[in-house]
Amino acid sequence: MAEADLSDPRRLRAEIRAGRFDAPTAGVGGDALQANLVILGAADAADFLRYCQANPRPCPLLAVGAPGDPSLPALGEGIDLRHDLPRYHVWKTGELAERRTDIADLWRDDMVSFALGCSFSFEAALSDAGIPVRHQDAGRNVAMYRTNIPTRPAGRFSGPLVVSMRAMPAADAIEAVQICARYPLAHGAPVHLGDPALIGIADLAAPDYGDPPDIRDGDIPVFWACGVTPQAAIVEARPDIAITHAPGHMLVTDIPADRAEAILTGIRPTIT
Amino acid sequence: MAEADLSDPRRLRAEIRAGRFDAPTAGVGGDALQANLVILGAADAADFLRYCQANPRPCPLLAVGAPGDPSLPALGEGIDLRHDLPRYHVWKTGELAERRTDIADLWRDDMVSFALGCSFSFEAALSDAGIPVRHQDAGRNVAMYRTNIPTRPAGRFSGPLVVSMRAMPAADAIEAVQICARYPLAHGAPVHLGDPALIGIADLAAPDYGDPPDIRDGDIPVFWACGVTPQAAIVEARPDIAITHAPGHMLVTDIPADRAEAILTGIRPTIT
Repeated sequence: MAEADLSDPRRLRAEIRAGRFDAPTAGVGGDALQANLVILGAADAADFLRYCQANPRPCPLLAVGAPGDPSLPALGEGIDLRHDLPRYHVWKTGELAERRTDIADLWRDDMVSFALGCSFSFEAALSDAGIPVRHQDAGRNVAMYRTNIPTRPAGRFSGPLVVSMRAMPAADAIEAVQICARYPLAHGAPVHLGDPALIGIADLAAPDYGDPPDIRDGDIPVFWACGVTPQAAIVEARPDIAITHAPGHMLVTDIPADRAEAILTGIRPTIT
Repeated sequence: MAEADLSDPRRLRAEIRAGRFDAPTAGVGGDALQANLVILGAADAADFLRYCQANPRPCPLLAVGAPGDPSLPALGEGIDLRHDLPRYHVWKTGELAERRTDIADLWRDDMVSFALGCSFSFEAALSDAGIPVRHQDAGRNVAMYRTNIPTRPAGRFSGPLVVSMRAMPAADAIEAVQICARYPLAHGAPVHLGDPALIGIADLAAPDYGDPPDIRDGDIPVFWACGVTPQAAIVEARPDIAITHAPGHMLVTDIPADRAEAILTGIRPTIT
């Protein structure tokens, strides 16, 4: 039997749904936009929506599902969030309770799903511009840090801004600011650069999440708002249940990543 | 007799031409674009034009005069560069030979004039965004430094990139990159930020031109290509004669500064 074409997002989701693919989604799905997933019950969803809208840098909203509806038609045809991610994390009262490859039996008719932008899009744009993305070159996860910058609270959701850090020469940092400013749905321009102590980071070599960074002579550290921020807020809020993607195991959409801003901000009305 | 309206660029130039205004042009001419001026004989003009085209960051060309023609119709009605700047410097074989308020008797029919963008436009845009421009607040000249970055040579014109430095908090630096990238005719985005040693600057407190900077706790130094670069290249090239504006005593054009990019890059064909 021929192998399925994993660069086609719909075929990839079909493989995932059939239980034949449960690996990280980096490098599959072709050039399709990938997204972070958060699923909450109705009691928490309204506050979380307000939290995302108040904190668009760490929590760029790509799409919000209708209550009880596991599809996200704005992001792709036939998406079923109960099956279509390779791996899920299930959180109970703020603690990681279970790792799953399918959440059909946990779905409730009050559940609301949130797809949030991730850093994949802008890292691809940086690479295309010849800017080093050192953790990728080293085959590591990006280094992430809790800062002393508070997010804007909404209901029970609050907590510090979490940032990812990429080190690069200053001229690359200047170009990276300009490139990333064009991707507000992928965390946008950096939030800080230079001295880490100014945002409450004591030691770059000891990240709070991810792997220690590779920093070269002449590099300047550049910090972006990070999609771990909403996960930290969920831990803080302790909802009875929250379901998220497992790190690296993202929702693969039908939207070409390089056209996501135009499509999702309404300049282009539909996925073509 | 009523005072002339110095916020009107044409009236201001008429006052200058009549010898009634010879002061710095900061704060006069309303919102009109101001420009650096370089005048060279035909023997050097072709090389200098190539030098500017090869080094657009420090030498953004706004307009080039026809040989022997002291007008610059692209920049304003009735401009006569022999009279219309408040103060001129006359350079002979690379050395400052004379300070003048009029250069009519030095004009030759092979002379070519170059109007180059200056930092006034982007400093106004930074101030409008609430970003501190500390040397203005302190009533000082901006700090400028010779770097170890060579410009691209053209004929006899060569030399180091000269940069101006403005210190500000990192979040402002990130916004400044995005703002200034929209003003390529006013030196564009910064060329460096962070560690000055990486571009050959030993001591920020000891600038090569201008005044020592005001750097606050938490500031990051941000460096822009500077219009002193072509002056340094002229010193290096030692042309028989070169005439420039005196520092701060600029050519005031008819072009609204905030529309200069559109008008001069041809999006808008004429000054209206």
